[in-house]
Amino acid sequence: MNIYAENLRGRDSAYVITEALLRSVVDLEVEARVTVQWSDDPDFSALADADVFVGGGFDQKRLAKHASRLLLVHSTSAGVERYLPLDWLPPQAAFTNSSGIHAAKAREYITWALPALHAGLPRFAQAQRESRWNRKLTGLMADKHVVVLGLGGLGAAVAEAARAIGLRVTAVTRSGKPSPMMRVFPIAQLNAVLPTADFLVLACPLTPNTRGLIDARAIARLPPTASIVNIARGPVVDTTALCEALRQGRLAGALLDVFDVEPLPKDSPIWDTPGLLVTPHVSCDTPDYIFRSLQILGRNVKRLREGLTSQLENQVDAQLGY
Amino acid sequence: MNIYAENLRGRDSAYVITEALLRSVVDLEVEARVTVQWSDDPDFSALADADVFVGGGFDQKRLAKHASRLLLVHSTSAGVERYLPLDWLPPQAAFTNSSGIHAAKAREYITWALPALHAGLPRFAQAQRESRWNRKLTGLMADKHVVVLGLGGLGAAVAEAARAIGLRVTAVTRSGKPSPMMRVFPIAQLNAVLPTADFLVLACPLTPNTRGLIDARAIARLPPTASIVNIARGPVVDTTALCEALRQGRLAGALLDVFDVEPLPKDSPIWDTPGLLVTPHVSCDTPDYIFRSLQILGRNVKRLREGLTSQLENQVDAQLGY
Repeated sequence: MNIYAENLRGRDSAYVITEALLRSVVDLEVEARVTVQWSDDPDFSALADADVFVGGGFDQKRLAKHASRLLLVHSTSAGVERYLPLDWLPPQAAFTNSSGIHAAKAREYITWALPALHAGLPRFAQAQRESRWNRKLTGLMADKHVVVLGLGGLGAAVAEAARAIGLRVTAVTRSGKPSPMMRVFPIAQLNAVLPTADFLVLACPLTPNTRGLIDARAIARLPPTASIVNIARGPVVDTTALCEALRQGRLAGALLDVFDVEPLPKDSPIWDTPGLLVTPHVSCDTPDYIFRSLQILGRNVKRLREGLTSQLENQVDAQLGY
Repeated sequence: MNIYAENLRGRDSAYVITEALLRSVVDLEVEARVTVQWSDDPDFSALADADVFVGGGFDQKRLAKHASRLLLVHSTSAGVERYLPLDWLPPQAAFTNSSGIHAAKAREYITWALPALHAGLPRFAQAQRESRWNRKLTGLMADKHVVVLGLGGLGAAVAEAARAIGLRVTAVTRSGKPSPMMRVFPIAQLNAVLPTADFLVLACPLTPNTRGLIDARAIARLPPTASIVNIARGPVVDTTALCEALRQGRLAGALLDVFDVEPLPKDSPIWDTPGLLVTPHVSCDTPDYIFRSLQILGRNVKRLREGLTSQLENQVDAQLGY
């Protein structure tokens, strides 16, 4: 089984695939051809021979054109919105993502994000910028209400972390499928749930259904004491509307880890928005990120070799887009 | 039993005693004289008649001079370093503090403080000030080691919160008295414990023994990956040495909630220190602060009326200073 891995130049080493790592995590035949290339230096002959492709931020048109033998394409990211629709995927190939490897880190992020927002940390950070003592006491956080959008690997991690620190959690998902752990509402009822939120945490995939879902009208339905956390994808929330709500005091705070354009441009008004804290897309990734992603690939390659093609882990649903 | 309460002008309403609140929380005889005055407008005749005095930041010399009948002086703060030594206290009077009422809020503060420091939030906040995307991934926090200085009401709350989010905790206390919950070392062994800390949390009273305890030498014994949290009193740590260590990269981060002078002056270099987050003395207080403090007083007044003078809650040890 030949494997072709592609890296993007300039990325953090946490995301770089090496041949040694690939061979140590994925159990390949001795004669398997392993190719690791930068995306701007493709090896078309190896692509044409590849059974498996793995990469992040790759050019799907190139795969459609040059990699017709593929049985499996593995995305090192969880979000695969950039590859939709999957019309480029060779008909015999499966497409898998890296959903689930973000859970442990996301739990830690939520563990600090929610009580820090409750304590008013964004306003304190802003006061610090201005060398200003701006004291404001807050009551206890216990029993505040978290609304989490999405209940996949990421959303479940959010819910778990929030409950562990004494918060009540309600989930809003595409289907509204019931959970034994918490109340779940379908997305159609989002507007009814928003006014009850102390925290709204975005942890859904970016799909045509979720793009711009948290727009000015949705934000207006949140209580002015509520805060928003986005660890999903930037375009799920209308950031301009969010910043305006914060500036007008119609929202207590926000913690954004993802943005429409990353890195967030130097001249973005987001940086200076009162009550808004920026973290640079670090909420869910650890330095061993690529190792964890390749572990999924390794298990799936094993299944492929055993002929268990219908039992692949993390297969992306072309209809749902995640 | 006559009671005299004193308020400081300009303080947050969370700390202001009213006669109505006093009468609702403290069970007084109908004929009891209740006097509530601003500290700059004392009623010396009422002071002379008072059996009980309650206040925060009061002038102990005034009490020595004008309030010779006192049986009980209740401090609305937990730290009573400003009243030491207790040579001003009428010989028949007990002195109590508000230790313990800070625990629930302190747990919340620690719940966000430690994972936020681990994630590098102070550096992200600084990058945000400069509209700069400064991405750096961190591994998981699980099993990191917290050293907490002090194991009174506040220190126990720190330990509890840290353990609840998966951290290991070691306490350093005056006596080193063993605890079933964690390892405890006496203060004499502080230097041996510091190199093992990922987080050092200061939660001790300010006494002659703890003033300046975390000085340049102690800070130098911490690993450069360690962070410091101070929710005790400013002078426990040599802030100049702390800021220098942060500027030189000999320490990963710091979160300070208490300072030598509060409000922290506009021209303090602390505001701009890289890796340092400031919160304005909010770590342990809630908006119902004075209610909680008066509850302690209420229980003690009941004991006094029942003649249980030796069983008062939160009595300050004149020798230990807390």
